[in-house]
Amino acid sequence: MHKINRVTIVGGTHGNEFTGAFLIKKFEQLPDLIQRPSFETITLLGNPQAFAAGKRYIDKDLNRAFFSEDLQNSTLSSYEDIRAKAIYQILGDKNQSQVDVIIDLHSTTANMGLSLMLGSYHPFLLQLASYLSSVNPEVKVCYTQAEKGSNFLRSLCELGFVIEVGPVAQGVLNAEWFQKTEKLIYTVLDYLERCNQGSIPESENTLTFYQFIGTIDFPRNEYGEIQAMIHPQLQFRDYEPLTPGDPIFLTLDGKTISYEGTSTVYPIFINEAAYYEKGIAMCLTEKQIDFRF
Amino acid sequence: MHKINRVTIVGGTHGNEFTGAFLIKKFEQLPDLIQRPSFETITLLGNPQAFAAGKRYIDKDLNRAFFSEDLQNSTLSSYEDIRAKAIYQILGDKNQSQVDVIIDLHSTTANMGLSLMLGSYHPFLLQLASYLSSVNPEVKVCYTQAEKGSNFLRSLCELGFVIEVGPVAQGVLNAEWFQKTEKLIYTVLDYLERCNQGSIPESENTLTFYQFIGTIDFPRNEYGEIQAMIHPQLQFRDYEPLTPGDPIFLTLDGKTISYEGTSTVYPIFINEAAYYEKGIAMCLTEKQIDFRF
Repeated sequence: MHKINRVTIVGGTHGNEFTGAFLIKKFEQLPDLIQRPSFETITLLGNPQAFAAGKRYIDKDLNRAFFSEDLQNSTLSSYEDIRAKAIYQILGDKNQSQVDVIIDLHSTTANMGLSLMLGSYHPFLLQLASYLSSVNPEVKVCYTQAEKGSNFLRSLCELGFVIEVGPVAQGVLNAEWFQKTEKLIYTVLDYLERCNQGSIPESENTLTFYQFIGTIDFPRNEYGEIQAMIHPQLQFRDYEPLTPGDPIFLTLDGKTISYEGTSTVYPIFINEAAYYEKGIAMCLTEKQIDFRF
Repeated sequence: MHKINRVTIVGGTHGNEFTGAFLIKKFEQLPDLIQRPSFETITLLGNPQAFAAGKRYIDKDLNRAFFSEDLQNSTLSSYEDIRAKAIYQILGDKNQSQVDVIIDLHSTTANMGLSLMLGSYHPFLLQLASYLSSVNPEVKVCYTQAEKGSNFLRSLCELGFVIEVGPVAQGVLNAEWFQKTEKLIYTVLDYLERCNQGSIPESENTLTFYQFIGTIDFPRNEYGEIQAMIHPQLQFRDYEPLTPGDPIFLTLDGKTISYEGTSTVYPIFINEAAYYEKGIAMCLTEKQIDFRF
């Protein structure tokens, strides 16, 4: 593994996810907190206008604006398209990286705890994830790369990943999640420092992770209007097994809809506010245990 | 007390408060649920465009658009100003009521449980509140009338009140709060029916309620930027006593700020997402017990 020279911490990629945005504000005021002897750490407020407005985005989702071809497309000119290109200028991309690690801070209304969202099976990321989940049982690890390349900000860097925390409402700064995320960031930076010193912290040689396999939308009527809600027995049960026949939705008129899959899955992002407009009531994952790397 | 002839249930006055908006959708589909033998119940989706957009409002807060003089002011022409005038045409006002009771459904990111927000000490409202809190211990009662008249939708009717439920994130339909709110509405309607029948349900002759006395903003710097968050010991502690010297905020750099008031107060709307832009970190109330009416 080559030396880590530069780490970027991004917050506020979604303007109403305050945990990350205010951590960036803190690190801007107290930059020594994130410096380590062997590498430089820089901060970036992802979407300043959306943060100022307290909205997820101004024109479109910034964290879906990083397809390579879109970054090269000069006809795309919404606020977020322009912002994505500016971030690309700062951070480079996989082929021409200005940074070695990107940590992109997000929050969710789902009960995701402290989740690491990985976009690749890079051995270094897997070792880091294994270490973090071994020192903090609240840490969960997901692999959510789409097949056709990624439009996520984290994809600008081979060692890019997301820290996703919750449940926390949009537009709210919650001290508990602020502190837990801050502590996790320091653990990551300390880990990277030790790697640079040649003493990679020991961790289990296994990793439990959750592999994205698809999404489920809310039941809707012919006009696209939602006709059922997440079943109360499933709400806040992210990362727990969902077995065929288990309650999944409750219709407005009180009927239970059961999960009709053929095997046990592990839903995540259950009832994430920002995914209603994407037609996603939850994401489904498969639990993978004892993956050796 | 004169007979109740018509009740209006309003939901989605704020478009991203889904509990009320989806209850209106349910009652539109199943109107018999809210009809009672002696009166008519009508429903109203407060802010359809904001609900469709998943936002609190389009141009301005609809639930601050009901000052009498604003309703008469033809120069006010934002979407919500026009919508407020349309609602006023439907419901009338205190002097010319088309309805006898307004129930306006809201949700909050604060831990408000099932709160009744009253704008007057009308004996009928106090008796109703006393009854509801006696049959359901989760019900809390607040008196939040501003001194200079009200710009709330509920103020269009002498017997108007708000049901405020939470904690629930903006833009999320949560089944538990949906069901609790629905049940409370039926309890209200059944109570009104019994009043019309001349058999007012018995309840304690006392009422515990929380009287609004003011607001506290987040600590901010010279640019208006928030420099501290709700202290983790205060988060979700709505309706609990806050005594001088108790932790109230935690600065971004980790310092505790204590409450400097001179007497014990009971904060509500602690960390309500929609109040950041209003400069409100929480509202303070005084607890009043054994109020006899």
